[in-house]
Amino acid sequence: MASKFFSERNLRFLLFEVFDVASLTRYDTYKEYDGKILDMVLKAAMELAEGLLWPNFQEMDKNPPQLVEDQIKVHPSVKQFLKECGEGGWIGTGIPFEWGGQQLPQMMIQACTFIFAAANYSASAYPGLTSGAARLILNFGKEEMKKTYLPKMLAGKWQGTMALTESEAGSSLSDITTIAEPTEYGYYKMRGQKVFISAGDHDAVENVVHLMLAKIKGAPAGVKGISLFVVPKKRMDEKGQLVLNDVVTSGMFHKLGYRGCPIAQLSIGDNDDCQGYLVGEPNKGLVHMFQMMNEARIEVGAGAAAIASAAYYAALEYTKKRLQGRKLSTKDPTLPQVPIIDHPDVKRMLLFQRSVTEGSLGLLVQCAKYADLASVLTGEEKEKNELLLDLLTPVAKSYPAEMGLLSISAGLQCLGGSGYCDDYPLEQYYRDARIHPIHEGTTGIHGLDLLGRKVMMSGGKAYKLYLEEVQGNIREAEKFKELESYAQKLKQSLEILQKVTAHLMEVGKKETPELFLADATLYLEFFGIASVAWQWLVQAIAIVETLRNNPDGVEANFYNGKFFAFRYFFEYELPKIESLAKRLMNSDGLTVEIKPDYFSD
Amino acid sequence: MASKFFSERNLRFLLFEVFDVASLTRYDTYKEYDGKILDMVLKAAMELAEGLLWPNFQEMDKNPPQLVEDQIKVHPSVKQFLKECGEGGWIGTGIPFEWGGQQLPQMMIQACTFIFAAANYSASAYPGLTSGAARLILNFGKEEMKKTYLPKMLAGKWQGTMALTESEAGSSLSDITTIAEPTEYGYYKMRGQKVFISAGDHDAVENVVHLMLAKIKGAPAGVKGISLFVVPKKRMDEKGQLVLNDVVTSGMFHKLGYRGCPIAQLSIGDNDDCQGYLVGEPNKGLVHMFQMMNEARIEVGAGAAAIASAAYYAALEYTKKRLQGRKLSTKDPTLPQVPIIDHPDVKRMLLFQRSVTEGSLGLLVQCAKYADLASVLTGEEKEKNELLLDLLTPVAKSYPAEMGLLSISAGLQCLGGSGYCDDYPLEQYYRDARIHPIHEGTTGIHGLDLLGRKVMMSGGKAYKLYLEEVQGNIREAEKFKELESYAQKLKQSLEILQKVTAHLMEVGKKETPELFLADATLYLEFFGIASVAWQWLVQAIAIVETLRNNPDGVEANFYNGKFFAFRYFFEYELPKIESLAKRLMNSDGLTVEIKPDYFSD
Repeated sequence: MASKFFSERNLRFLLFEVFDVASLTRYDTYKEYDGKILDMVLKAAMELAEGLLWPNFQEMDKNPPQLVEDQIKVHPSVKQFLKECGEGGWIGTGIPFEWGGQQLPQMMIQACTFIFAAANYSASAYPGLTSGAARLILNFGKEEMKKTYLPKMLAGKWQGTMALTESEAGSSLSDITTIAEPTEYGYYKMRGQKVFISAGDHDAVENVVHLMLAKIKGAPAGVKGISLFVVPKKRMDEKGQLVLNDVVTSGMFHKLGYRGCPIAQLSIGDNDDCQGYLVGEPNKGLVHMFQMMNEARIEVGAGAAAIASAAYYAALEYTKKRLQGRKLSTKDPTLPQVPIIDHPDVKRMLLFQRSVTEGSLGLLVQCAKYADLASVLTGEEKEKNELLLDLLTPVAKSYPAEMGLLSISAGLQCLGGSGYCDDYPLEQYYRDARIHPIHEGTTGIHGLDLLGRKVMMSGGKAYKLYLEEVQGNIREAEKFKELESYAQKLKQSLEILQKVTAHLMEVGKKETPELFLADATLYLEFFGIASVAWQWLVQAIAIVETLRNNPDGVEANFYNGKFFAFRYFFEYELPKIESLAKRLMNSDGLTVEIKPDYFSD
Repeated sequence: MASKFFSERNLRFLLFEVFDVASLTRYDTYKEYDGKILDMVLKAAMELAEGLLWPNFQEMDKNPPQLVEDQIKVHPSVKQFLKECGEGGWIGTGIPFEWGGQQLPQMMIQACTFIFAAANYSASAYPGLTSGAARLILNFGKEEMKKTYLPKMLAGKWQGTMALTESEAGSSLSDITTIAEPTEYGYYKMRGQKVFISAGDHDAVENVVHLMLAKIKGAPAGVKGISLFVVPKKRMDEKGQLVLNDVVTSGMFHKLGYRGCPIAQLSIGDNDDCQGYLVGEPNKGLVHMFQMMNEARIEVGAGAAAIASAAYYAALEYTKKRLQGRKLSTKDPTLPQVPIIDHPDVKRMLLFQRSVTEGSLGLLVQCAKYADLASVLTGEEKEKNELLLDLLTPVAKSYPAEMGLLSISAGLQCLGGSGYCDDYPLEQYYRDARIHPIHEGTTGIHGLDLLGRKVMMSGGKAYKLYLEEVQGNIREAEKFKELESYAQKLKQSLEILQKVTAHLMEVGKKETPELFLADATLYLEFFGIASVAWQWLVQAIAIVETLRNNPDGVEANFYNGKFFAFRYFFEYELPKIESLAKRLMNSDGLTVEIKPDYFSD
């Protein structure tokens, strides 16, 4: 088992040196959080991760949840973890003080999520889901509802979920058929089925609180008829006792990875006795839900970067110890073998992983900073940060998800045959991470979201703000001699992005939506590479500033290593946009035209 | 479970329409094999695959081999399969008639290997390994040895293996430490340990015959001291009885996938009673072994393409049935949902898979044709075909292995959440295929082989012949109006390849081998894309010729579909060489320079 799953040093670099999280103390909301307290928070997160999550990482995979009659039984450590999460305030990190939360900056929440997910992604999903569900209740639920649910959820005693997907409605949520029938008692009678519900049922909690999308009887077709409900597994009866609420676990999926967390199929109201409680306004359910979905999307990105980080450190450890072969220039077989980290091709694979992982993490913390600023600023500045976060959400979800897979695969490759065997954790990372391009919207869906919606929203305002942000950092980087050529490269890349975007907008105006969006996934890929290059340039400014002060020892190694990873990204990854641009500029409609029958043999 | 795992139509297209396998009847060796007989061979292979391999595909994964005391127990169907392989002549396909083999053309062997591997990769490995081991004995063993081993092996009663890797000698075979001590009785006393031995022990056969690399006591260091031995699990005693030969299964690896075939750890001669029998000349073991290794490398490529093929058909079937969403131009939620194959992004993923799979298969059959011609021709023509096969072996192994992973991942993605669950076979394909960039030489090793050895061998003759082959096909394609622009694109790509190669050769002359070979893996990737584009152009000539005759019905769909896949490759995949070229032209030594310590945090 590898001994390291993330770099504390790098996390501190991002939080304190690049994005200056402590500067948020100037705002009332975060005034408690000076550097010292933030440091304690980080340390506590690491302690929990190292003490309880990491030791159970392989164990939870090898002993996945079991469905016994109607009840899913999970690994015993989950109960302990949720208890500690409750006691330590880890579920309420994003909840205001008045509701018993920690009111932490998003940047810090991001960092803690990353640490937990790197230690044990499956385990980290449980409190993460409860946390998102609690925030949804907080923002849109009635006072009574908040009082009933929030304390239990924040204490880790009740699990929260996102209950959206149905067997015939996954990517197309407009097609959900779960029905909510109004009653004279204020609650709704729920009836339907949900599938793929993460942590949808388990025995480490007393109750499960589903934040569920359903249609009120007679509601309009499509997304305009979707409402949001709280549907608990157990409801409170008149005496204040928990009684079953006719939500039955009718199945459990067996998954490639992410096995420590159960994915349930739920039958709702089969006995006509399921109560649901409306959250927010009728028919506005999807809009409300998007709060949780957007947060969850960023969390998926963080989870992907986290697994990639853990895979990177496992690979790194192996490459330092494993002796194999000799330097190409001194092939004398009587000389001792060298650690494989001496081979340029192995260093290339390590740099690839590091550049993807740390670049992704940078983008994620950047997004969290936008969220923080949006929450404390007002007027135009608030809107600006909201728009940037909105635009970048599909990118911050999909780039880490897609590139994380390749990064982990490169990590596995570093171990050769051992990477394929379960004596090392790489094969599990490879399996665990494959969920990320799928859940919380597939990569294809995010491509449509970015190109078909986000780039054009508010008259293209978010996109324009994005360009200005990047250009601002390019100008800053140009002041450093060491960064001039890289600033230049990013400038050129941004020009290509603008050219491609303008071309596609033209197609969008003149042609069918099918043709306009045919290669939206590739556009998302392009946007992701450009955005991570931007983030690496942002990091490089901080790196170069420090290197000028001649750090020594491990600090010198850290900054020099980061500078190589930055260069790697610009020299090996950034050029990929050119091939993508070539394709994106060619709207020949190849994938639109081909008839399904042509796939017949 | 999907119902189709490969396209018979496409296989026939390649064998008969593109590469004209029946034309080999003009040569004495293959004079028996006219179209009719070849057809029967294909049909028999399909019958075996459908009857015995495909039905056990998931079953063998869910019930992997068990090590019980010293004996590995495998799925019961393996025994039946090997019996049928023996009776049907499937192990001796590449063995001459005089030794009881089928003397089939390599192109046909390739096709049958592909069918078996697509149906059940793990199962297909057993006869494949025996077959390779038998050919090695045939070519380098003494008459006596042939008589002892070949009949049993060809009958499927004795398993053959490649016993190369040791715990401290994987990529670096020169470091093996297994020792062979000569005795006065003609045999050698063997002592050592081997790891990662596929089918290295199991209970579906009476005996296991290891083709083992070892060093004769006192042999020179490095690869020049490696010899090849037959080391059976059980040897024949004086009475002709099989007795144990002190080869003990001391462990078994638990793998990510490819679980139907055990990977063993062997302890050899722990009781000082292991006999080994020299094959070929002393100290020439690695050269001899390369025959089996090269064949195995092509087989790995075929296995990868085969799994990608099965994944493609499973994905295709799903996308035709799964209803989800609506056309982007008609979003009315009251309309019924459409099959997801109607969405351009899904068609893009399918075309990606098809273009990778069928392009890879084309390259593999091309290689088999070079092997066939090398075996029947003489003089310069023989050498030409040998050189081309040699040059393309790392490419035909690595392109399908690496791109197969991405292709299968795209297949899994087509199924969304269902792709991640074991109700569908995609998750297994995703696991099974991950072995291919590792075994029979990692992709990194093949990069070094291609750029560091093959491109330069015989004064660059193979590389020159390759360029001529491709240029010849470009000229042929130029005669078709429909192909002119594609021929032009391939011509430009070839020019970029030449520019990149020339640049690297210069670096090789002037700089260190480390710098020269730093990006050899990317060079291999480049070479792979260009080679598969070439093969698609070769296929396109046959496609266009047929389309001109206005085929109808399913035939029209087949050829039109192929033409789209061909176009897809040129419009989406081929442009990737430009990003690669940009990197390859930049020999800045980034991965050579970075110190291992820079990875310290």
